[in-house]
This record gives sequence, structure tokens and C-alpha cells, in this order.
Amino acid sequence: MNDVATGAPRVGAGLKIDADRLWQSLMDLAQIGATPLGGVRRITLTDLDRQGRDRVVGWFKAAGLEVRVDPIGNLFGQRAGRDPQRPPVVAGSHIDTQPSGGKFDGNYGVLAGLEVVRTLNDHGVQTDAPIEVAVWTNEEGTRYTPVMMGSGVFAGVFPLDYALARTDVEGKSVGDELQRIGYAGTAPTGTPVGAYFEAHIEQGPILEDTKNTIGVVMGALGQRWYDVTVTGMNAHAGPTPMPLRKDALLAASKLVVAVNRIAHEQAPHGRGTVGFMQVAPNSRNVVPGEVKFSVDFRHPTDDGLRVMEVALRTACVCVGAECNVEVKAEEVVYFPPCHFDLECVAAVRAGAQAFGYPHLEIVSGAGHDAVYVARVAPAAMIFVPCKDGISHNEIEDASPADIAAGCNVLLHAMLARAGVAG
Amino acid sequence: MNDVATGAPRVGAGLKIDADRLWQSLMDLAQIGATPLGGVRRITLTDLDRQGRDRVVGWFKAAGLEVRVDPIGNLFGQRAGRDPQRPPVVAGSHIDTQPSGGKFDGNYGVLAGLEVVRTLNDHGVQTDAPIEVAVWTNEEGTRYTPVMMGSGVFAGVFPLDYALARTDVEGKSVGDELQRIGYAGTAPTGTPVGAYFEAHIEQGPILEDTKNTIGVVMGALGQRWYDVTVTGMNAHAGPTPMPLRKDALLAASKLVVAVNRIAHEQAPHGRGTVGFMQVAPNSRNVVPGEVKFSVDFRHPTDDGLRVMEVALRTACVCVGAECNVEVKAEEVVYFPPCHFDLECVAAVRAGAQAFGYPHLEIVSGAGHDAVYVARVAPAAMIFVPCKDGISHNEIEDASPADIAAGCNVLLHAMLARAGVAG
Repeated sequence: MNDVATGAPRVGAGLKIDADRLWQSLMDLAQIGATPLGGVRRITLTDLDRQGRDRVVGWFKAAGLEVRVDPIGNLFGQRAGRDPQRPPVVAGSHIDTQPSGGKFDGNYGVLAGLEVVRTLNDHGVQTDAPIEVAVWTNEEGTRYTPVMMGSGVFAGVFPLDYALARTDVEGKSVGDELQRIGYAGTAPTGTPVGAYFEAHIEQGPILEDTKNTIGVVMGALGQRWYDVTVTGMNAHAGPTPMPLRKDALLAASKLVVAVNRIAHEQAPHGRGTVGFMQVAPNSRNVVPGEVKFSVDFRHPTDDGLRVMEVALRTACVCVGAECNVEVKAEEVVYFPPCHFDLECVAAVRAGAQAFGYPHLEIVSGAGHDAVYVARVAPAAMIFVPCKDGISHNEIEDASPADIAAGCNVLLHAMLARAGVAG
Repeated sequence: MNDVATGAPRVGAGLKIDADRLWQSLMDLAQIGATPLGGVRRITLTDLDRQGRDRVVGWFKAAGLEVRVDPIGNLFGQRAGRDPQRPPVVAGSHIDTQPSGGKFDGNYGVLAGLEVVRTLNDHGVQTDAPIEVAVWTNEEGTRYTPVMMGSGVFAGVFPLDYALARTDVEGKSVGDELQRIGYAGTAPTGTPVGAYFEAHIEQGPILEDTKNTIGVVMGALGQRWYDVTVTGMNAHAGPTPMPLRKDALLAASKLVVAVNRIAHEQAPHGRGTVGFMQVAPNSRNVVPGEVKFSVDFRHPTDDGLRVMEVALRTACVCVGAECNVEVKAEEVVYFPPCHFDLECVAAVRAGAQAFGYPHLEIVSGAGHDAVYVARVAPAAMIFVPCKDGISHNEIEDASPADIAAGCNVLLHAMLARAGVAG
């Protein structure tokens, strides 16, 4: 695999990861917290998380990586480059899961990074910049909010002290739990990153629907979330004539329809979702007096999000007047739109082209660690299809061929950014 | 108060009930199970129900009534008439309450009947037919279903054995609880009734809204209830494009709007309510995969109910196709429309006219014991306004003047049907 003229390895289409080894590592890690339905429950900073981290650290060390842990528990394994002055080219993701999670979400990005290292080792490839694999703490946010905690601290989005002081429902803090499982490190956080790549299952149906193998991720949708409360008046379903009602559920229903319309008006990338609704008193023969529901708007631009918000607020006023109820909408979350680094995106696209994989430019609808890392370093993501677009579910699945393809693209993109000695 | 020429009492506008005594009895009975917020919690067949029954029986006996109890616990107090062959003219309702009930719902109909008897006693009025006051068991249905159990057994709607075998959430049966509180009687049930009148707060806003004192109740709306299940597909709110969603809550919301439209198309008496809704998984960033909700249709005619059902089923098909979800609607309850006896209704109207009370023909939106009694005897109801149309609530309220007015109308109507000796 060496170029005769230069002695340097021929990288690109010629160098491929070991698909079986990557798959086997995914299946091995999935044993820790395995569920009867084939999923994984490995919640952040639990004993199972420790076991998962220990397994990954063992693999890092076996691959010759130098391991360090920062104070929020982010775990890094570095393979030295020829030029120790250059910041590392990093692949990463997370290994914590949802309570009923799958084998691939997060784990894939970490183990794809490890497989890149193993492949480089197998072929004796030396890179100019160091190559690093990162495991970010608490991406899922199921036990501790905020989500994407480790990458958020790394990127300076949250102060370290704030994150360490967060508690779960039992009152146990992040800091104490990190100490308990032995992952409260002392390595500096927020250190320079030359480029960051994250391979991930799409968690949506677009690649499968369009028969593409690789999603070249351009960025991530901005998000604005709202809590909406509709206040009407409880009334008997029988004796209360329709015109005299103050039906909070009727108003809420009209607003659900409006949220959907508002998102369709921002096709193709706009999203509008009401996922949560609570009706009171929720009795079949009482006109509901109060309904609370969530609104989740996503859009690739801040302007688009603003247009959606204005449309929502207009709908709240109109529906409130129409139904004789009070409507309050409060913004509770804002994630700005994220645009990945164009050179990193180009490296991903070139990787897909080099291997001849069908690929599609795509915008991530969900948040990922890469979105926070992108605030402090050039970053991009590689998506591969997942079965039926399903994730955060024990039946989450992906094909070995697609998993391998995404890792080959990762290998190519990382080498392009790290530079190969020669 | 005696007519000089005949020696018979002058009935009609001349004879009036004692408004203060009626109000005081309502307040006294409301002490049993009184809640801190001024309401009453006296759930059927509990110790508090026994105390309430004992109090009423004491009042019946003090008023000279002959008391009997039937096997489902219905309680009757009879004042003899001149003609023992004639079936009694009965006033009645119930004294069980909702868990957070008020002082008037049910209690008013019973104590208004008692006040009629006391007034006749005060004035030495002898009626041709006996006068009777009835207390029906378990009208509210909060501890035991079906609702309107006592009057239903009396009218042959449910078999006695079926009702006695019903159990509460702790497994205690109606029969055992009747024995325990000492109200498992042996008097025959379903005995002939000459006429039945029930005074009741409206439990709706129409009389207050139209500034009327008396509702001349023409009948009760028929009811058809449905359980609807919408099955879509859980999906991530971010990565799932709008056109690829199977959003069960969007479909359910469109159906809530449709139910409202269908009811408005049957103005003024049609009613359509979605009071209950359950969303799964009910997480703010997951497109809901399943929604269950109730539909409650009411209409004065069976034809009207059928039109509403057809419109609902059409909407289910259209919305299901539009949203790419499955919609199933199952009918779970049917109450046929009820038309009260025209002569009894005329007696109520004449009573309101005799006293000069502003009155309005009205259709009951809710079920009442009178609806079951009407299946076996001529019956009618008298509504009085309740504050803001609110009932089944501790803040349920009515004015002493309206309470007295309804009782005067009851007195007049009962005398008209019982006939006055002379």
C-alpha cells in the first residue's frame, strides 16, 4: 500500500477500514447495558457507563492511543502525528444512550474513530497532525440536562462548575457521579482542535427514502422551543351550548394544525412539532378548561425561525380570540442554526466521491456534539442511513455495509485534514 | 288560605313554599361531607352517604311521611292522598355527589320535594293522589358505574342483580355496601308513578345568559360517545421532514376541529366535545405515534345523532388519508333522546306563568334520574340557574331566590297533577 515513488501510503480509495472489526466492536460495546429487545440502556454516569468507558479505554490503549480525561469526563485517545505542534484531527461522539436506546446512536461515531486509528495502525500510516478519538459526556441529557453537556463545556457553551453541579432526580450531582465512576479527569478541556468529524446514523428517513448511502451534513437546523398554555373554562359537555364554550382543547387543536402549516410553509427544511400535550381535567364529558403543549420549531436560518415564531404568535392571538380563551406562548429553548466548515464538508464529500458512494447534502435536524464543537473548531458530520429512520429506540438498526461506508468516508476526510507524511 | 265557598285551599299563585326553610335544609344537608372550599364530597354508599340518608329520613318522618326503601336503596317518603288507588305524584333526585361536588346538584330536587310536603302540611292541603319524595341511589356514577343506577333499576333499564353486583376500585359491591350502610330495602321497586317532577340546577349557562329564572325542560339530548385511536409513527422531531411524518397528534387535532364543526352544524341543540386526550410518547421532541381521545355527541333526535356519526366517520377516513395514519372510532355509550310528557311539561310552564317567573323552554344536555323515570311514567323537569353555569365543582352556587322559585313551580306542578281535594 506504499507509494513507490515517495514511500508514503496511498490514501484515498486504496485505503479501507475493516468493516467486520468495526461491526464487531459495535456489537461488543452493545453488550454493556444490552436490553432484551436488542437495544442498549447505558445512561450517563451510571455503573454501566463506567463499564462502557472502561471498555473503550482498553481498546484505545490497545491501539496505542494516549488517553486523557478532562474535568467534565470527556475522554480522548490521541495517536501522535509527525508534527506535535499541530492540533489534532478529531473523530468523536458519545456512548451514553437513551433509556430505551439502540446500538448505534453515538457509539458509531466513537468506534468509527477507533476503527480509523486501527486502520492507520494496520497500514503503518503516519499523519502530519495527530489523530484523536473523543468520547463526549452526557450527550443524551436523559439523566442530566442540558443535553450535549460534555461537548458544551468543551466549547465553552456552559461553565464547567454549572455542569458539575447539575443533579439528577435523586439529587446526585454530575461532579459526584464523575468521581464515583472514576472519570473526573484533570486534563485541560477546550484544547485546540484542527478539525472535527462525527459519523452518526441519520436518525431520520431521508437517506433511506432517497436511496443514498452517505449524508454530507452541511449543518444543523436552529431550534426554538415554546411552552404554550391555553386557558379556557371547564364546562359540562351536555348542558353547555357550543357558542358559550371556552374550549381549551379546541384552541390547542387549531394551534397544532397551525404549527404544522407554519412548518410546511418553510419547506423543505422547516420543521414544526407538537410532541407533548396535557389536557385538564381530561374527563370525557367535561369541556377542557386548560391545555398545555410544546412547540418545537427548527429551521436552517435564524430569519426562518423568526418567521415561524411570528406566525405562531399571530395564530395564538387569532385562535385565542376565535375560541374565547387565553393563550400564552413562552420560549424555553434556543439553539442557533449551525453551518459546518466548508472545507470539512468538502473533505466528507470528496470521501464519498472517492468510494463512489451515493451521497446527498443534508441538514441535521437534531442536535449533536459536533454542533457545539463547531463553535470552536472546523467541523462536519457524516450521516449513514438507519432502518426506517428510527432511533432512540431498541429497534434502531443500520446495515453493516452502510456503517462501513460511513467509516471509510471518515477515514478519508480525517486523512485529508491531517495530512499524510511523505 | 282556604277558599270560603268550597273549604278547599286555593292553590296556585296563592300558595308558596317557605324559601328560608328550603335554603336552611340545603345548607344543613351540605354540612355532611362539607369541603373546605364550600362544596360537598358525599360519594354514594359511603358512611357520609348513610349520614345524609339518615338526615333526610329524619326529615321525612318529622314531616309525617311513610318511608320505604327498595332493594337498590332508592328511598321514598309518601304523604297519603285522598284516593289510595291513585299512584303517587313524585318529586325526586339524588343526594350522592361528585368527589368535588357542590351543595345543589341532586340535593335541591330532593329537598324541594320535601319543602313541597312541608308547605302542604303547613296549609293543611290534602291532595287526591299521594305525594311522594324520592331519593335515587348513585346518580353520579363516580364510585360505581353505570350512572343513574337507582332510577335505572327502578325503570327497568338495568336488572337489579346486575346493579347489586357492580364493584368499586377496591372490589366492594353495591349490594354489600347497601347492606353495610343499612339501606338494602325490601320494598318493591318499579312501582307505578302518576307523574314525576325533578327540580335541578341547570348545570349550564343558558338561563343565566338569557336572564330567565325557570327552565321548562322539554326533554334531554340523546348521546353517543366514541373512543377514537389514531395510530401513526413515533419519529424524531428534528430529522423527520414534514412530508414523511405520520403524526397522530396532527390527525387527532384535525378531528377535534371536525367534532366542533359537526356540532355547530347541528345548532342550536347539537353538542360535540372532546374532553379526554392521551398522547404517546408525549415527549416534546418526538412526533407522536399514538393518540387516544373521546368524542361525546349530543342531539335532541336520533336522526341528528346519526348525521353527526356519519360526519365523524367521514372525517376519520379523510383525516386518516391526509395524515397517513390509521384512525379507529368505536361507539362506547348510547343514550336515546328523551321527550318529557307534554302534560307534565305544561304543568311546569303553567307554574312559572302563575308566579310570573321569566321562563324558557330548554333541553337538558345532561342525563338525570328523570330521563330514566320518564321511560315508565309521565315526567318533566324544572331547571333553575346556577352561577356561571358551573356544577360538579365545589364553587357550584345558586341564588336563594331562584332556588325558591323553582320549588314554587314544583309545588304548583305537583298539585296540578295530584289534584286537590274539595
